[in-house]
Amino acid sequence: MNLPSRLSRLVDRIAPLDVTAGEAVQRHLDSLTKPPGSLGRLEEIAWRLAVLRGGRPRVERPVLFTFAADHGVVTEGVSAYPQSVTAQMVENFVRGGAAVNVLANDAGARVIVADFGIVNPVAPSAALVQCRIGAGTANMALAPAMSRDQALRAIQAGAALAEEAIAEGADLLGTGEMGIGNTTAASAITAAVTGAPPATVTGRGTGIDEGAWRRKVQVVERALALNRPDGRDAVDVLTKVGGFEIGGLAGLMLVGAAERVPVIVDGFISTAAALLAVTLAPAAGSVLFASHRSVEPGHAVALAHLGLVPYLDLSLRLGEGTGAALFIHLARAAARIYAEMATFKAAGVDGPR
Amino acid sequence: MNLPSRLSRLVDRIAPLDVTAGEAVQRHLDSLTKPPGSLGRLEEIAWRLAVLRGGRPRVERPVLFTFAADHGVVTEGVSAYPQSVTAQMVENFVRGGAAVNVLANDAGARVIVADFGIVNPVAPSAALVQCRIGAGTANMALAPAMSRDQALRAIQAGAALAEEAIAEGADLLGTGEMGIGNTTAASAITAAVTGAPPATVTGRGTGIDEGAWRRKVQVVERALALNRPDGRDAVDVLTKVGGFEIGGLAGLMLVGAAERVPVIVDGFISTAAALLAVTLAPAAGSVLFASHRSVEPGHAVALAHLGLVPYLDLSLRLGEGTGAALFIHLARAAARIYAEMATFKAAGVDGPR
Repeated sequence: MNLPSRLSRLVDRIAPLDVTAGEAVQRHLDSLTKPPGSLGRLEEIAWRLAVLRGGRPRVERPVLFTFAADHGVVTEGVSAYPQSVTAQMVENFVRGGAAVNVLANDAGARVIVADFGIVNPVAPSAALVQCRIGAGTANMALAPAMSRDQALRAIQAGAALAEEAIAEGADLLGTGEMGIGNTTAASAITAAVTGAPPATVTGRGTGIDEGAWRRKVQVVERALALNRPDGRDAVDVLTKVGGFEIGGLAGLMLVGAAERVPVIVDGFISTAAALLAVTLAPAAGSVLFASHRSVEPGHAVALAHLGLVPYLDLSLRLGEGTGAALFIHLARAAARIYAEMATFKAAGVDGPR
Repeated sequence: MNLPSRLSRLVDRIAPLDVTAGEAVQRHLDSLTKPPGSLGRLEEIAWRLAVLRGGRPRVERPVLFTFAADHGVVTEGVSAYPQSVTAQMVENFVRGGAAVNVLANDAGARVIVADFGIVNPVAPSAALVQCRIGAGTANMALAPAMSRDQALRAIQAGAALAEEAIAEGADLLGTGEMGIGNTTAASAITAAVTGAPPATVTGRGTGIDEGAWRRKVQVVERALALNRPDGRDAVDVLTKVGGFEIGGLAGLMLVGAAERVPVIVDGFISTAAALLAVTLAPAAGSVLFASHRSVEPGHAVALAHLGLVPYLDLSLRLGEGTGAALFIHLARAAARIYAEMATFKAAGVDGPR
């Protein structure tokens, strides 16, 4: 891979977790007034957050990023909804009426909505961050989705937003996206990085029928055959079959990893971005939390490749960051268990016989 | 069944859900700006809450009940922890240091801790409700766990606490318990009501070894053979192999069902209480939400009998109400999705092509 120096420096800052810190964290968890391990995967979340944050897990300023962009591949008829919906839903995000707004608000998280390249005009708003890389990607079934320069700029734009949020105190970053057609890009990325056949990683998206699904599989197959993305080169994969918002999310994850700020991976599209981030920097996986298991079939393939096991299994398939928003509750609960529970000693509770 | 008139009147007030109301609720859910069904089981929670609450789901004043009592069966060596821990943990609850306190606080819920019959002395506190039915149950491996009168009083005491909380505005009731030895009672109840063999519904509780597990299975078998509980008579099952706190939780669930206030079922022991409540009033199941899937093997058997599918699968095995507390977040999120999301029409978003 040939990376520009700024991205190369970012990737170089990403180091594996310190496992010796993990032992002290485990001792603290086992000193709390509960049978060891009895809080199951909530303890796993607490352990990971505590190790990442040097023994002081904290979820006080979560920020959820919803990156939006359009996809040229929609002209192939791969989506149940028209392209106009991307812009309309972004206006809905800005007004606070979408599912991600309700769920983020309920979880105490700020939502940052960014335009990474929507085709239709969106009413200007101070609540919409401009990160436009282009007016939607090109149709990957006919040509590369974007130029290598655009791919690098998308990654860099997402990274810059994450850096800014962390500088302002964000202690948990959530990912989300909007873009009619972007499950097709996620399927192509997943196939390119993991080597899985397109038919096993392509699903129904927002709800297409059998015929449209078969067309979608063929489109992914054609895009891969035509563009030949190199699965070991994340920037090449993003260039050939990606999306601007997916590049942005990958950049955001790299900054989370470099700064040791935990990042919540939402559903299938966010997980495709995670595949790109981890291909660039394998140690980035240590900051990633898979919030939920989507009904999209490619999601399980991508999660397995990343070695992530999701925490929620609620048959969500909306995206936007809705699964990430729900996971914030679990992360905060886990952090507070670690920080606030009494120990056996302090509470005067007997241990096992 | 021969029920006293007060319990009989309570049971008679419990009616099945109005399915015609369900259609209007579904239409509203499908009018919101998301592909129909794309929020998966969160929409199922929203639907159930909305139908129960006449189209106005609300989670503003959740209350979590942690009922504690001791179990005579512990003399058989069925638990990893000494009986002293029941009283010690209740003092920990009262001081706010236990997992359930942290998680309930995080979920915005008040915790009501009640003594249904703890053996060891507990420091008096205004934060501990007195509902003592006896100084622990008798050893069910040698005799009925309690008298029929005690069983009825336990149910009535739990019902009274639920009535009081609802009168004060509680809009969601969570269940929880503490009692060294109470997984043994839950296993015996589950076997008696569902007919499942004791070995399939008996687990490791707070963490016993293989030998203690075999002993625990034999204890459940002996208790059932000796006492011959009638699985169709919930009061008889509670009398023969139950626990005071389990009776209290069953009473609480019946009041939730009569008042159409949703009740969150915690783990295995709370689910055993749900088996008793639903045996008394089959329609009570419509207010019950199974929060999580415990690692206790009997839990899956009990849930299947109730027709409930849990929403969280985090390998919890602590009890106290910890799973119920975590579910409050999902319930509140679902209620807010129903009440706060924009519709396609209001937001000007196009539907499918």
